[in-house]
Amino acid sequence: MNKHYYCIIMAGGIGSRFWPFSKLSKPKQFLDILGTGKTLLQATFERFNKIFPTENIYVVTSSIYHELVKEQVPQINASQILLEPFRRSTAPCIAYASYKLKQMDPDAVFVVAPSDHLILDEGVFLEEIKKGLLFVEKNNALLTLGLHPTRPETGYGYIQCEKKPIDPEIENLRHVKTFTEKPDLELAKVFVESGEFYWNSGIFLWSANSIIPAFENHLPEVATLFNIDSIYWTGNEDEAISKIYSNCRNVSVDYGIMEKAENVFVLTADFGWSDLGTWGSLYDHSSKDEKGNTVEGDQVFLYESENSIIKVPNDKIVVLHGLKDYIVVESDNILLVCKKDDEQMIKNFVNDVKLKMGDKVV
Amino acid sequence: MNKHYYCIIMAGGIGSRFWPFSKLSKPKQFLDILGTGKTLLQATFERFNKIFPTENIYVVTSSIYHELVKEQVPQINASQILLEPFRRSTAPCIAYASYKLKQMDPDAVFVVAPSDHLILDEGVFLEEIKKGLLFVEKNNALLTLGLHPTRPETGYGYIQCEKKPIDPEIENLRHVKTFTEKPDLELAKVFVESGEFYWNSGIFLWSANSIIPAFENHLPEVATLFNIDSIYWTGNEDEAISKIYSNCRNVSVDYGIMEKAENVFVLTADFGWSDLGTWGSLYDHSSKDEKGNTVEGDQVFLYESENSIIKVPNDKIVVLHGLKDYIVVESDNILLVCKKDDEQMIKNFVNDVKLKMGDKVV
Repeated sequence: MNKHYYCIIMAGGIGSRFWPFSKLSKPKQFLDILGTGKTLLQATFERFNKIFPTENIYVVTSSIYHELVKEQVPQINASQILLEPFRRSTAPCIAYASYKLKQMDPDAVFVVAPSDHLILDEGVFLEEIKKGLLFVEKNNALLTLGLHPTRPETGYGYIQCEKKPIDPEIENLRHVKTFTEKPDLELAKVFVESGEFYWNSGIFLWSANSIIPAFENHLPEVATLFNIDSIYWTGNEDEAISKIYSNCRNVSVDYGIMEKAENVFVLTADFGWSDLGTWGSLYDHSSKDEKGNTVEGDQVFLYESENSIIKVPNDKIVVLHGLKDYIVVESDNILLVCKKDDEQMIKNFVNDVKLKMGDKVV
Repeated sequence: MNKHYYCIIMAGGIGSRFWPFSKLSKPKQFLDILGTGKTLLQATFERFNKIFPTENIYVVTSSIYHELVKEQVPQINASQILLEPFRRSTAPCIAYASYKLKQMDPDAVFVVAPSDHLILDEGVFLEEIKKGLLFVEKNNALLTLGLHPTRPETGYGYIQCEKKPIDPEIENLRHVKTFTEKPDLELAKVFVESGEFYWNSGIFLWSANSIIPAFENHLPEVATLFNIDSIYWTGNEDEAISKIYSNCRNVSVDYGIMEKAENVFVLTADFGWSDLGTWGSLYDHSSKDEKGNTVEGDQVFLYESENSIIKVPNDKIVVLHGLKDYIVVESDNILLVCKKDDEQMIKNFVNDVKLKMGDKVV
């Protein structure tokens, strides 16, 4: 593969929706949430490592997760881990990686991907990544991956695109018309039926030479903060980044750049994707018993229970009776029992617990 | 009080219905199941100790609970604890205590009471006990306490009695017509409406001179086994009792004597009694929040939950959402979530867990 191709894995999220399994001290990307034997970060790293050499893969994370990243991805060296001192959403994260990479390699072309998504068809995914890298290497383009929607999902953002490909040789590459926020169910149904809308995967591809001008045009104050070559690859980088982040606002790359730029494209594909953003999505992608329960835990006894998610420690004896469509999770001496349909309330529960118990439990 | 009056507390039950809170290794009489600061055995002992001197109170228990009794009732000495080598229901337990007491005091008159019941109105209860002791001291009578039924409870046995008192001066003392097994709901309603039926408390009063002839008449093989004066109050007692128990059949005093004898009487009263035989009865006697939940545990967060019983360790954070009429109990790293209406299934759950995990967890 072209030595100018890089991969940036974003691993700084806090994933409170999976509380108490996923907590501030160990968010979901650092957990083997699907029970595969690998954490989501490790699965993401290994997936990209099939086409990117190890030395071309970078991980951006919060400084509080530095040790977790070192432990879980021992293949990479210290300079490949970029530490964010504060949480500032995706635009500062991408600006940091982009300016740093560009200084080392002005011809850098890279994919930016979350560390906590599920991808079932790795072969298709990597082929699309390679196709996308070739395209953004040769064009001033900001490219994102879009998924054919298989259901009117209200938990995802959608991308509306032109019906005709811009290049007859790349049939699944289209110009983007608009990005949308998460729709309600009625609107999501319209989106799916239209054939013009795709799920927004949050996976981006571009060259340094495309994304940096995009920062300068659409987020000039962010560009100004990060555009200081003298700090990168030096012993002062951490200190300088700390100052930059403290002056930088919270803004996503979707809102700050993708929704505003003209040169935005989508590569549409089907590679069995989920953002694993909810217990429901985890449930959809987990194996189930004959009554539709997905069970993790060696000593779980279920009676008259259906379509529930059980995730408890292996050394715990758990007897459950009469639970239909529930989430039952125990982790670190915290037990959560919650109706699956109301899992959006978990963030409120976490807030209440935090108020009473302090940050250590969230 | 008459120095020939004794109290025998039966504390050998295994209480698996409260699993996992109550287990074979620590059944409910040894637990502070109501959260009062005292175990049920301690509450029972202290209740009787208000009218019986400490040295006249005996506890019969299984040998495996010897240490628990010594810890929880340090007031009594070793000779006041009678150890059963095997579980054989109430008749052998009572025969053991009766023959042993009679050898020491042929004029012994005693109450025999379970260790795991709730009595709310102690004053009334103790007055009835005193009244009953006086009656059985002077009459060849087997006396039991009956409660005015306040609802058509299907979890209790009932006592049917004559409408007229045998002695106009003791209006609430009647001759017993029949004992009944636990009725179904329809029959229980008929019982309650009739005014002739009372809840069977399982609390008995008699003299040694009445109960021993009753054993000889109705359970002669049990009487023969225990009627060996030379073993009681000697160093050989434990060994001899072990042989006697291994040859003794399993039989309750209700079935073996009370249902057959003619000289059976009931003293009826209202003293706020429950056998605490089920989570439901525990729930009835526990304080509840405005949504009808009874909660034990310092860090329990409830949402959209009603009429449930929550009993979890204080150091555990428990968030529950959408549970109506459930039992949620955690003890010794065992979690049980069960619909309150189906709690009779708990014994099946315990069997299943025992089959898989072995006896240590039940």
